[in-house]
Amino acid sequence: MKEKALEGIRVLDLSRVLAGPHCAAILSDLGAEVIKIEEPEKGDESRSLRTFSNGESAYYMNFNRGKKGITMNLKTGRELFLKLVKEADILVENFRPGVMDRLSLGYETLKKYNEGLIYVAISGYGQTGANSQLPGYDPIAQAMSGICSVTGWADSEPARCGAPIADILAGINGAVGALAALNYRNRTGKGQMIDISLVDVSVSALASLNQVYLSENRVPPRQGNGTEAAAPGGSCHGKDGTVIFAAGNDRLWPRLAAIMEKPDLAEDPRYAKNAERVKHRKELELLIDEWAKNFSAEEIVEKMRSAGIPAGSVYTIDQVVNDTNISRERNMFVPIHHPAAGEVRITNNPIKMSLTQPEVQGSSPVLGQDNKEIYSKVLKISEEEIGILQDNKII
Amino acid sequence: MKEKALEGIRVLDLSRVLAGPHCAAILSDLGAEVIKIEEPEKGDESRSLRTFSNGESAYYMNFNRGKKGITMNLKTGRELFLKLVKEADILVENFRPGVMDRLSLGYETLKKYNEGLIYVAISGYGQTGANSQLPGYDPIAQAMSGICSVTGWADSEPARCGAPIADILAGINGAVGALAALNYRNRTGKGQMIDISLVDVSVSALASLNQVYLSENRVPPRQGNGTEAAAPGGSCHGKDGTVIFAAGNDRLWPRLAAIMEKPDLAEDPRYAKNAERVKHRKELELLIDEWAKNFSAEEIVEKMRSAGIPAGSVYTIDQVVNDTNISRERNMFVPIHHPAAGEVRITNNPIKMSLTQPEVQGSSPVLGQDNKEIYSKVLKISEEEIGILQDNKII
Repeated sequence: MKEKALEGIRVLDLSRVLAGPHCAAILSDLGAEVIKIEEPEKGDESRSLRTFSNGESAYYMNFNRGKKGITMNLKTGRELFLKLVKEADILVENFRPGVMDRLSLGYETLKKYNEGLIYVAISGYGQTGANSQLPGYDPIAQAMSGICSVTGWADSEPARCGAPIADILAGINGAVGALAALNYRNRTGKGQMIDISLVDVSVSALASLNQVYLSENRVPPRQGNGTEAAAPGGSCHGKDGTVIFAAGNDRLWPRLAAIMEKPDLAEDPRYAKNAERVKHRKELELLIDEWAKNFSAEEIVEKMRSAGIPAGSVYTIDQVVNDTNISRERNMFVPIHHPAAGEVRITNNPIKMSLTQPEVQGSSPVLGQDNKEIYSKVLKISEEEIGILQDNKII
Repeated sequence: MKEKALEGIRVLDLSRVLAGPHCAAILSDLGAEVIKIEEPEKGDESRSLRTFSNGESAYYMNFNRGKKGITMNLKTGRELFLKLVKEADILVENFRPGVMDRLSLGYETLKKYNEGLIYVAISGYGQTGANSQLPGYDPIAQAMSGICSVTGWADSEPARCGAPIADILAGINGAVGALAALNYRNRTGKGQMIDISLVDVSVSALASLNQVYLSENRVPPRQGNGTEAAAPGGSCHGKDGTVIFAAGNDRLWPRLAAIMEKPDLAEDPRYAKNAERVKHRKELELLIDEWAKNFSAEEIVEKMRSAGIPAGSVYTIDQVVNDTNISRERNMFVPIHHPAAGEVRITNNPIKMSLTQPEVQGSSPVLGQDNKEIYSKVLKISEEEIGILQDNKII
């Protein structure tokens, strides 16, 4: 096995469902030892979230791959937890702000036990501000950040992005913060607290659209699959599916007119210049669809690409999973062997590194599966004591 | 000024437009010295991309904040570039794969000059595979990764996410790779190459939806703003705007029925259990809209939140920028002072760190503004020689 970038780094993962678990899964893929700490008997609520493989939540499996799993009641097990904190480098949690403080386990407390601890807190609205106590929820962060306002068409309903993008962005930004903090700790020995909000990361992803208002005082509209500034572009419709393309500049448009076998269109005063094409956008779309309906989506893509026009099919998820390029050449889906569910394929980490390739380190844990290893080997607790902790439901 | 996580790290940014510049901007916010290298006289093509502030591209300003700017022709200035590579820690580029090799500046060449160099290459489809030579373009990556297939409503057109999410995710994943590689280099002295693709990062963001097909062999549909598994939830429509909410479990739904002043609905056999509510989803939506239309979006949100129901308004970008929580309490928009455009507000980095707070380090550069500093101070080139380089359009 190749070396890993985060070898020797230990992460405590107290988080649940998506954003926090995704952050810790990235750190696991990069080679950290991630110990997921769950409530005895119950565990992370996403253990019962769709989708299932052989009765086990494959949702949980994906976001908790490659982690060790222990159980611990953070109230009655507080002393145990503090011992574990002394042995850790990074902690990830996504409780509502204040929960860890009320357990007397907030960052200010933990850093007394481990000055080098890097504490990543992910929440809906951040640790500060008037909204901090509201529950975090991906579709609502998408709404409040403005993502929904610019997704879909101007003459219909605002839509959320079908991917849980606020959660995903929060997880990755948490990883950026943790890794930057690790770099600082390498120089200084000091840990710190990192505060990530679902709304903030979503606002940040809209920077180019925010700028329309910040610089021009204009509210960017929903533009469907095209762009305000150029035409034609966006979607066209083949016999069996939708294609997204961009032929909105004066160099690409004549090429499209040529493959449509209507080269005259490129000279037509209504369409010759982009400024005019933008005004006659709807007519152009109809003309292109009239041509496109004779071909399959893949044929349209091939024709456009041959002419140097950027184009791609709107793949459904089955097409993505079965695509040779994505699946085989880029290795985006990998098997794990789950103790209960058997072999399950999950989505791979997208980062490729030449020396320390990120890899899914193994299955997600069965609830409490690594209690013995962590409590006896890391915390040096005797088997007898472990039995007592179990009997008292502390672990 | 506070310390920064990446103090002492030097980044060469050869990238253009969005994904690469975003990656390097994150490293700048974290405290790295980022030197953006642009083609003499032309510069990054996004210098002419909308949106504008006082005639300068604010798009460029946002994604290139806090960078130094130099000009260099990579063909005629190859030797100069190699000298600079020796002084660098990280390089970011988003050329089409093969461009740097054809300049004899590919990673395998550069590492002979600097073994510790971390080389981040961002492209549409990755450095390997049959699609590598296709142009990268955010909406097409959204299409080919499956994002469009799950965005919008099942009975209408697939939509892209209004944020350029493939580009944004590529930039952040590039930063994760660079920071993980930096951690590895701290232990070993070795740099490496990082390969990020717009399609891969988008596929990765869909993990929870990919799993529906990977585990259940079912293609996840477009679900609008709701979810397949629970009702009611998604959007409802107030007098002046749309609200996104989630009241799909058996605990929250009776609370919604209560604030609608129709507590009987919670007992109605058509709506009492989630399994039934999902079947009668459309009826429920109409009932909720019938109630919602009497109130403003903010009133609906307030009523729902008071009842413990997660809810938020679909903010337009002006509402986001003017929101006290996002703008002031979370400080998501910050001013830069651009030499030509004057004061312009841009979108802040969303990561908050207690010791090494990421900060926008200053304005974007005017083309070639730091030639003198970098060529004379870093590369020790005399003023006379710099003049000759300029005369020959090498810089």
